Amino acid sequence: MSTQDLNEDTITSAVLARARRAKSARFKKVIGSLVRHLHDFAREVELTEEEWAYGIDFLTRTGQKCDDKRQEFILLSDTLGLSTLLTQLNHRSHGDETEQTVWGPFHRLKTPRFRLGSNISEGVRGAPCFVNITVRDSAGKPVKGATVDVWHSDDDGFYDVQHQEWNGAMRMRGVFKPDTDGRVWFRTILPTAYPVPTDGPVGELLKASARHPMRPAHMHFLIEAPGYDRLVTHVFNNGDKYLDSDAVFGVRKSLVRTYPKHKPGIAPDGTRMTKPYHTLDFDFVMRPAKRATKRATKRAAKKRSTKPRKSAS
Amino acid sequence: MSTQDLNEDTITSAVLARARRAKSARFKKVIGSLVRHLHDFAREVELTEEEWAYGIDFLTRTGQKCDDKRQEFILLSDTLGLSTLLTQLNHRSHGDETEQTVWGPFHRLKTPRFRLGSNISEGVRGAPCFVNITVRDSAGKPVKGATVDVWHSDDDGFYDVQHQEWNGAMRMRGVFKPDTDGRVWFRTILPTAYPVPTDGPVGELLKASARHPMRPAHMHFLIEAPGYDRLVTHVFNNGDKYLDSDAVFGVRKSLVRTYPKHKPGIAPDGTRMTKPYHTLDFDFVMRPAKRATKRATKRAAKKRSTKPRKSAS
Repeated sequence: MSTQDLNEDTITSAVLARARRAKSARFKKVIGSLVRHLHDFAREVELTEEEWAYGIDFLTRTGQKCDDKRQEFILLSDTLGLSTLLTQLNHRSHGDETEQTVWGPFHRLKTPRFRLGSNISEGVRGAPCFVNITVRDSAGKPVKGATVDVWHSDDDGFYDVQHQEWNGAMRMRGVFKPDTDGRVWFRTILPTAYPVPTDGPVGELLKASARHPMRPAHMHFLIEAPGYDRLVTHVFNNGDKYLDSDAVFGVRKSLVRTYPKHKPGIAPDGTRMTKPYHTLDFDFVMRPAKRATKRATKRAAKKRSTKPRKSAS
Repeated sequence: MSTQDLNEDTITSAVLARARRAKSARFKKVIGSLVRHLHDFAREVELTEEEWAYGIDFLTRTGQKCDDKRQEFILLSDTLGLSTLLTQLNHRSHGDETEQTVWGPFHRLKTPRFRLGSNISEGVRGAPCFVNITVRDSAGKPVKGATVDVWHSDDDGFYDVQHQEWNGAMRMRGVFKPDTDGRVWFRTILPTAYPVPTDGPVGELLKASARHPMRPAHMHFLIEAPGYDRLVTHVFNNGDKYLDSDAVFGVRKSLVRTYPKHKPGIAPDGTRMTKPYHTLDFDFVMRPAKRATKRATKRAAKKRSTKPRKSAS
């Protein structure tokens, strides 16, 4: 089929037809839907060439703002509500299991592992906070082999990567292995509400939208264990004034907890505190990995259907 | 309105509502349509988190592939048919006027100006080609103050920027001012068919789509003049085997011309050619700038509606 002289109506099917020999049916479905929606968007608003040029420049600058400490495209996805939509699409029902929420742009690989009871914010100014969590399955049994990755903002609303003067040092973040009861405990500082970074293209978008960039205070948790769905979630601080207007639409009521404030005295880890401190208790409930289970079942079925023949020969 | 506990259905209207205080009505319309189509796409294909992560990485790499010599996002827009759609939306009827087509990713700013009759491909291997064009309005009158920016590929199918060893030198491109008759003539080499660059994310997309990356041979022209729509177009070489399957969907029948081949002899500029050469003749017809005219009309109307009162007082 010739694709000369395409017009605003025929261009879409011509682009879709061009991918007809793609090997992956899933790829064809995804790219087909993407092209249709992209074209429908342009037609619907009669996108001008100036707006298109701005869009090209916006996306280029978004990519160039990304490095190993900053992911502006994830921030864009977050602020456009796409990340929350994805979380909901991919983790529909949760029952007793802990709800998921967005990754956010500040997770870092190679975060150091700490021993239980450590202080992950040594020397950082802020209200002390003693965290005490459990990682269980829905029957209440400790999940074996779990890894708990935690990260959060400081008293000024910054993550470690935003402190240029820290030269990449990791603070307010750490990785833990639960004890045999599924418990993890550590000391840190109370996270505060903070603005998502507004010095890049996403800031431009928020400004044009007359939207504030604030996220309510929270602690990030990424919990992984063999045989369970990866759990990407936050625990929000109850009473934060931004809970109803999170810039990235990530708040779930089931993830909001009071971080109670205590008078000076003996902290949960036995430390004698001469100033007030906070505590956070949370029980994470992991969900068995459905897809992994399916694959394992398939593998097992395959083994059953082939092995016996061999042993029977 | 609280935006806690948004689900896959409520997230879209929550994101749209968040921009309700945006000052620009046009911005609200464009971002609203964009968010709806982005979300509808994700819901329609039930986008997985792995696919989303691939998308984030793809867009990041696309942005990072861009520099002053390469624009991978324009190439993405071109190969997804968005650029041709935009051209059609923004230049619907053309009548006698020359049709527009895509920019492509290889236009360069600060291209040097040449005198009429110059050779813009001095020392570059390829079949000599003498170009002779006119820039007129639809009444046939020469367009005053026009600038003609031309660029094209070489005999191996590369643009100057793709020759690493040329260190940024500009070849097969130049800017001209027409003479008082609206004529521009210059010498160059015959452009050839070529693949769009496939060493970046767009190459990945074409491969997954089982699409070839070839563009039929053409010369780019960008013609600007005060009071006229900017004309972004190509002249394609008739007979090229990729005319029916241009990787960027840019071919218009009205822009296809024979670049006739001539036996050795006296070239159009008087040069005695000892080997065969080609010629290209094309008459560009510019369209008056409608929007500029509208604005000018509005300004004039405003003057009329205020000035007389003053003069009557």
